[in-house]
Amino acid sequence: MVLDRMVRISDSTVRRLSGYLRALDELDPEGEAIVSSQALAERTGVTSAQVRKDLSHFGSFGRRGFGYEVAGLRREIRGILGLSRRWNVALVGAGNLGSALFAYKEFRERGFDVVAVFDNSPDRIGHRIGDLVIEPMSRFRELCEERHIDIGVVATPARAAQEVAELLVEAGVRAVLNFAPRKLLVPRHVTLRDVNMEVELESLAFALRSSETRAGGRRRVEEW
Amino acid sequence: MVLDRMVRISDSTVRRLSGYLRALDELDPEGEAIVSSQALAERTGVTSAQVRKDLSHFGSFGRRGFGYEVAGLRREIRGILGLSRRWNVALVGAGNLGSALFAYKEFRERGFDVVAVFDNSPDRIGHRIGDLVIEPMSRFRELCEERHIDIGVVATPARAAQEVAELLVEAGVRAVLNFAPRKLLVPRHVTLRDVNMEVELESLAFALRSSETRAGGRRRVEEW
Repeated sequence: MVLDRMVRISDSTVRRLSGYLRALDELDPEGEAIVSSQALAERTGVTSAQVRKDLSHFGSFGRRGFGYEVAGLRREIRGILGLSRRWNVALVGAGNLGSALFAYKEFRERGFDVVAVFDNSPDRIGHRIGDLVIEPMSRFRELCEERHIDIGVVATPARAAQEVAELLVEAGVRAVLNFAPRKLLVPRHVTLRDVNMEVELESLAFALRSSETRAGGRRRVEEW
Repeated sequence: MVLDRMVRISDSTVRRLSGYLRALDELDPEGEAIVSSQALAERTGVTSAQVRKDLSHFGSFGRRGFGYEVAGLRREIRGILGLSRRWNVALVGAGNLGSALFAYKEFRERGFDVVAVFDNSPDRIGHRIGDLVIEPMSRFRELCEERHIDIGVVATPARAAQEVAELLVEAGVRAVLNFAPRKLLVPRHVTLRDVNMEVELESLAFALRSSETRAGGRRRVEEW
């Protein structure tokens, strides 16, 4: 059965499934009802053999030489990824980044509802954000329980992030998405994912600067 | 010399340097002028031995048993990461995600200026975003050259992302930050980094669902 096998699939397979799902979402809803592994491969940047292999983990959605039924495959992948239900998200940190994340509609469209927003700044607590009120950290545990939080999003400065992660864990949250630029320590039963746009940008700046340095070096050698 | 050694340091070292820089930025500007490797380690979630090792790559900013001079170390790391100058960024895709990225002030504070925004939707082209006008893709190459674009940010749907990456490369851009949920192919002289918040969220949903399934399985076994 699908559910028994599911727990052993790798993180990179899960990421590719996310990719296939987006590719399916982007297909013309009025268009073909069938999609080939080749078409999915082209839209996600992997090989068609990889597509067939990944999807074979979960039963046979397709027929050889025929392709995959779009609506059915989409429904199956959504089920596998846990997207056929909604998830309650607590956002911690209502600053610049937190506000941008709150405003990012795709999360809701994908099934992730931000149902609580916390901050420790008196300037922010009590203010409205969307249809929520920014709550103080002192109400954290109470509201996490009351609003059945599944996922905590850490959008605080780095120095506060570990403490927030510990509060999330104490409140029973088992999944953490960390935007703060530091490593967080969480117990093994908690799943942690990191996103850091600034660090990625800085590593690009580093690469650009390094290649300029190298190019400069080469030019000097050529001139000699 | 620092610049010669710099090109050999690993991606993970670069990421930790970003972390140290943020930790330094967060120190009280009125506070101590000296920071210990231990304090940097605690604020970034690594060991103090790791801090000392990473910083030793770039010359001796610290003295044993004394610590690092905050202002000097900050300046050095900024220099190493290529943040002592500003970088011109082209944002491609002015939808929900692109707009949120444009509004995210930290990029500018870190030295990354979005100086051009492109989209292919007639609904968006010509509209203002901040102090810029959203430009059509037909002006892409011209404006990338005119505005000396260093870094391209891809915030388009997955299906358009590879084509955009190729346009960026053709226009001479050597660094790409990709938010689209697909693998992009770029030539070797171009540095690519991926950020995908939705994929990370979906992998959390998958983990939560898997653990529920496992717990469910265990409960059944226990009941028997």
